[in-house]
Amino acid sequence: MEYTVHFLPDNIKVAAAKGENLLDVAARAGVYIHAFCGGEGVCGKCKVKILAGTAPTEKGHKITAGERAQGYQLACSSTITGDLEVQVPVKTRADGTALKRKPKTTRAIPARSLDSLVGKWDVDPPVEKRFLQLDPPTAEDNAPDLQRLMRAIKKGCYDCEEPTYDHPALLQELPFILRQADWQVTVIMLRGKRPEEPDRIIAVEAGDTTGEFYGLALDIGTTTLGGILLDLNTGKVLADASCYNGQIGYGEDVISRIIYSQRPGGLQALREKVVGSINQIIASVCGKQGIAARDITYIMAAGNTVMAHLLLGLNPKFIRETPYVPICNQMPLTRAAAIGIDAHPSVRLFLYPSVASYVGGDITSGVHACQMHKSSEVTLFIDIGTNGEIVVGNSDWMICAACSAGPAFEGGGIKYGMRASAGAIENFHLDPDTLDPMIITIGHSKPCGICGSGLISIAAELFDAGVIDQQGKFNRSLNHPRIREGVDNFEYVLAWAKNTMLGEDIVITEVDLDNLIRAKGAMFAGYVSLLETVGMGFTDLERVILAGNFGAYIDLERAISIGLLPDIDRERFYYLGNASLMGAQISLVDHKRFRERNQVSSLMTNMELSENHKFMSHYMAALFLPHTNMALFPSVQRALTT
Amino acid sequence: MEYTVHFLPDNIKVAAAKGENLLDVAARAGVYIHAFCGGEGVCGKCKVKILAGTAPTEKGHKITAGERAQGYQLACSSTITGDLEVQVPVKTRADGTALKRKPKTTRAIPARSLDSLVGKWDVDPPVEKRFLQLDPPTAEDNAPDLQRLMRAIKKGCYDCEEPTYDHPALLQELPFILRQADWQVTVIMLRGKRPEEPDRIIAVEAGDTTGEFYGLALDIGTTTLGGILLDLNTGKVLADASCYNGQIGYGEDVISRIIYSQRPGGLQALREKVVGSINQIIASVCGKQGIAARDITYIMAAGNTVMAHLLLGLNPKFIRETPYVPICNQMPLTRAAAIGIDAHPSVRLFLYPSVASYVGGDITSGVHACQMHKSSEVTLFIDIGTNGEIVVGNSDWMICAACSAGPAFEGGGIKYGMRASAGAIENFHLDPDTLDPMIITIGHSKPCGICGSGLISIAAELFDAGVIDQQGKFNRSLNHPRIREGVDNFEYVLAWAKNTMLGEDIVITEVDLDNLIRAKGAMFAGYVSLLETVGMGFTDLERVILAGNFGAYIDLERAISIGLLPDIDRERFYYLGNASLMGAQISLVDHKRFRERNQVSSLMTNMELSENHKFMSHYMAALFLPHTNMALFPSVQRALTT
Repeated sequence: MEYTVHFLPDNIKVAAAKGENLLDVAARAGVYIHAFCGGEGVCGKCKVKILAGTAPTEKGHKITAGERAQGYQLACSSTITGDLEVQVPVKTRADGTALKRKPKTTRAIPARSLDSLVGKWDVDPPVEKRFLQLDPPTAEDNAPDLQRLMRAIKKGCYDCEEPTYDHPALLQELPFILRQADWQVTVIMLRGKRPEEPDRIIAVEAGDTTGEFYGLALDIGTTTLGGILLDLNTGKVLADASCYNGQIGYGEDVISRIIYSQRPGGLQALREKVVGSINQIIASVCGKQGIAARDITYIMAAGNTVMAHLLLGLNPKFIRETPYVPICNQMPLTRAAAIGIDAHPSVRLFLYPSVASYVGGDITSGVHACQMHKSSEVTLFIDIGTNGEIVVGNSDWMICAACSAGPAFEGGGIKYGMRASAGAIENFHLDPDTLDPMIITIGHSKPCGICGSGLISIAAELFDAGVIDQQGKFNRSLNHPRIREGVDNFEYVLAWAKNTMLGEDIVITEVDLDNLIRAKGAMFAGYVSLLETVGMGFTDLERVILAGNFGAYIDLERAISIGLLPDIDRERFYYLGNASLMGAQISLVDHKRFRERNQVSSLMTNMELSENHKFMSHYMAALFLPHTNMALFPSVQRALTT
Repeated sequence: MEYTVHFLPDNIKVAAAKGENLLDVAARAGVYIHAFCGGEGVCGKCKVKILAGTAPTEKGHKITAGERAQGYQLACSSTITGDLEVQVPVKTRADGTALKRKPKTTRAIPARSLDSLVGKWDVDPPVEKRFLQLDPPTAEDNAPDLQRLMRAIKKGCYDCEEPTYDHPALLQELPFILRQADWQVTVIMLRGKRPEEPDRIIAVEAGDTTGEFYGLALDIGTTTLGGILLDLNTGKVLADASCYNGQIGYGEDVISRIIYSQRPGGLQALREKVVGSINQIIASVCGKQGIAARDITYIMAAGNTVMAHLLLGLNPKFIRETPYVPICNQMPLTRAAAIGIDAHPSVRLFLYPSVASYVGGDITSGVHACQMHKSSEVTLFIDIGTNGEIVVGNSDWMICAACSAGPAFEGGGIKYGMRASAGAIENFHLDPDTLDPMIITIGHSKPCGICGSGLISIAAELFDAGVIDQQGKFNRSLNHPRIREGVDNFEYVLAWAKNTMLGEDIVITEVDLDNLIRAKGAMFAGYVSLLETVGMGFTDLERVILAGNFGAYIDLERAISIGLLPDIDRERFYYLGNASLMGAQISLVDHKRFRERNQVSSLMTNMELSENHKFMSHYMAALFLPHTNMALFPSVQRALTT
């Protein structure tokens, strides 16, 4: 955030980073600029005048030569390269009254607060590499190769236990490596699970390879996989990559995956698909770093319970059937190569333990990453998604639950819903006077749909402007070309056909809004129910941690104003991002953290909300914007009555 | 030994068991009876007269009706069914003087002395089966299947650790077994390696299967495999089986197997062959007992270092090259099914640890079986074979060595040598007056060759009678149709062509005798060298234990008279039989013994005799019958000078 952008005539100053898009900066600052086409320079509505500084622009065909001479350019195609003073013309800017009514928070939080959350970790991985110089065998000392190796490892360590060793594959190549390397080798050891347990030799490499020491952290999501290649000597991130979970073709959510897994060959097919995606991640990060897949020393992964079952070939059938029983929470240790992952045969795949069928290793990893189990502050940890997972507690107690929010946040059940990819409307402002939209799409391309964060923005803005009521119904008395009765019910036109990728109008309908309200209602009822279990309310919460990729893109104010998040002091909120991947990353480099992972899951007590009557009544009460009981949302109430 | 057979006119009484062959009884008693054809009733020379009792006979065509009326029948086809008084006619019997000169010991020793050697063991195997009644999951208690199982295991055991569990295969079937069995299952647990280590769940079976609890003990020899199926509830032997090692086609001894293993695909081929043989044993013992291969719960095996390497796919290349380095002594724990053995996927294959390249797990197992490492008595443990292994010591110290005796004891390098199977001459007496033979073959069929124990008998008898001298050379001055100059050198005709299976004369040659002398010389030099290392001589030996199948068939007196075994008090000798299989069997049923096995191998210090100059000079001195230094063989010297 090195530069300042000064918007006039509103006189709003906002920090901006090099390379940011001017429309994004305006949206973040709460400055309304007409933008109907998502920012691809098609509608030509987002003209602004640069008063000081320069912001390079590429797409300027909607600007006349005369306008250009006066300093006009399109905000949607302007890039920040320095401090800027920007005049928003009357035609472009909105009145601003409604917008300035409350400051929009920024989604980014300072890195230091993330550090304070995650705590310090050491670069001292659960695996280690040691270079050894062995004495060659002689007639007087012809001990077996393995024994010679173990002796060298123990040398100078008088109280350490004899290390154990790995499966035959290690021994099959050992004699040849030792002799080819002239008895100078690097041994890869896995530390004992507990301090008193002996270390374990997992691989031996010729020569001194201690300089090349790599680990892979993996987040195995139902939709997306993310991976980070780490230098285990320094803890530095060398490369990252993400890709869709190859299982997507077999169903969007875990339930449809379970159903598919029950077909003949289904379990195997799903396993192969996710393994294929993991291999894609490995190929990508290794390619970026110029190393081979077999140079990765170990893999630490986190995924939900169903993903873990499918990856290990464990049948998830009973996870779907009441009373929702997984096969195991602590996943068996597996050799990555044994299940088809492109890795050296010695490489172990560690998976974060689950808590229950619908609170999986991704949540354990996230809770572990933010060290919630070690903090005295009462914390609400939220991962919003199709299955929203919630954890409440501190170092003394933790309870958790999953609430089936439905797929609205992932774009499911929404007429023009889509995942967060190029062309998805991710941000939205409404001109309170003209009721015209300012839409921002991912990648600043023409819009082709609405993703979860866009949906929340749209609902919040429509509600704030009185376009929809508390039940999400359109105000029938408004006479506006964008508000109309569609095929089935009322809708608002976000973008006209000519300005979209689809060549048809992109709208939000009352059914869409109803689905959103159900989704946010389920999440909200979840928090309330969990807190109620321990006799607490929102005021008791000292921290709210938003985890998950989706969580990182939520606009806090808007999420509160629709009742998705509790209306408490904004300073208590933290954005953790991909907490699951972060937990895996930390365990990968710090063996003390690594050893804690099972303890974290065992500290969490799961509650089944689906069978909970109180949850149902909380859910019914939450099917309003923001809630039936407005007293729960004081700041929203204040804003509405301003 | 329920009956007594009384031989006249020698007036020798000997105990005999029901079903024994009369010729065998006579041989054991030292009563010479003409028998040229091996006992198939072909030569008709072994006529005896039954004075009291009856001995049923089948092949009587060489007996005239008149002879039959007088009570004559062929000894070789007479079976003991009760007490017997037998007249050996002048024509049939020898003078007897030479035979009665020394009593032939019996090869069987009373069972109680074997017990005293092996000690007591408990039926308390390293694996256990427990029947469990689990509570089905409910909405209030929907813990994972695995956790539910572990809870049931821990129930009522407050201080025991959480058990660990096995690889994914167990978990893959767990939910279905639990539900199909209505939550009543039998769990198979492996006890922790040390008392403080947690137990490990290795398999789960539907219902109560505690009554069916089987283990397999295996001896994996270079030539032969032996297996015993045990009831792990009672320790009782249910069935046994043996077969040739399928690797035999790739070479007779370990060296030729190592050479073959270096060919492309050789290691894999050898592994598949021995696995095939193991599967043959499993099929045989399971077939006899009417159980399935997958009902076997675990396998405890012993084999020499090369056999263990080949079975596990470990390249034995450097075992053959100086300084003779194996990959490992403690063999990695392997799942039997993973290497192709026909077993349930959970079944572990335990292998006795080796001491060195040529002192393998079979010797460790044998030493463990006879508890030599716990006895204060100085003991010489011998396993005679192509590679004769020797261990000397007691509970304070043990040293061991292998001496490459060559294949003579296995029939190798002997013109008519063969393995101990049907038709092999296994026992031999010489009429000191007529120099005619009394030969006894395995299975009492026509002879087709000579096995190791036969070879020792032949050499001892020829030497005792003065047919050969101390260097194994025939007395050229004897004029006898059976002693003649053959193709290359002098030879003795054991059986004429018409009385053999081969249709040609079966002979023993001077080259054969030379090979035997080298073999016994190597063994003898081995004992002397090992004892010398600790400043001891034969008189210090309190026990001599003969292990191995071959050892069980050695005639003690004759083995001493050719200098293969030391000339000490006969009471100090013990026949242990297949000690390797016995050790495996005991470890299979007693977990305390099971845990000792690595300790036993680590207590044994190996010496390399092949590089030992003193061994070479002892070897040169031992290339005489019985030895250059006759003072080492006082009883032999006394007999010769009688």
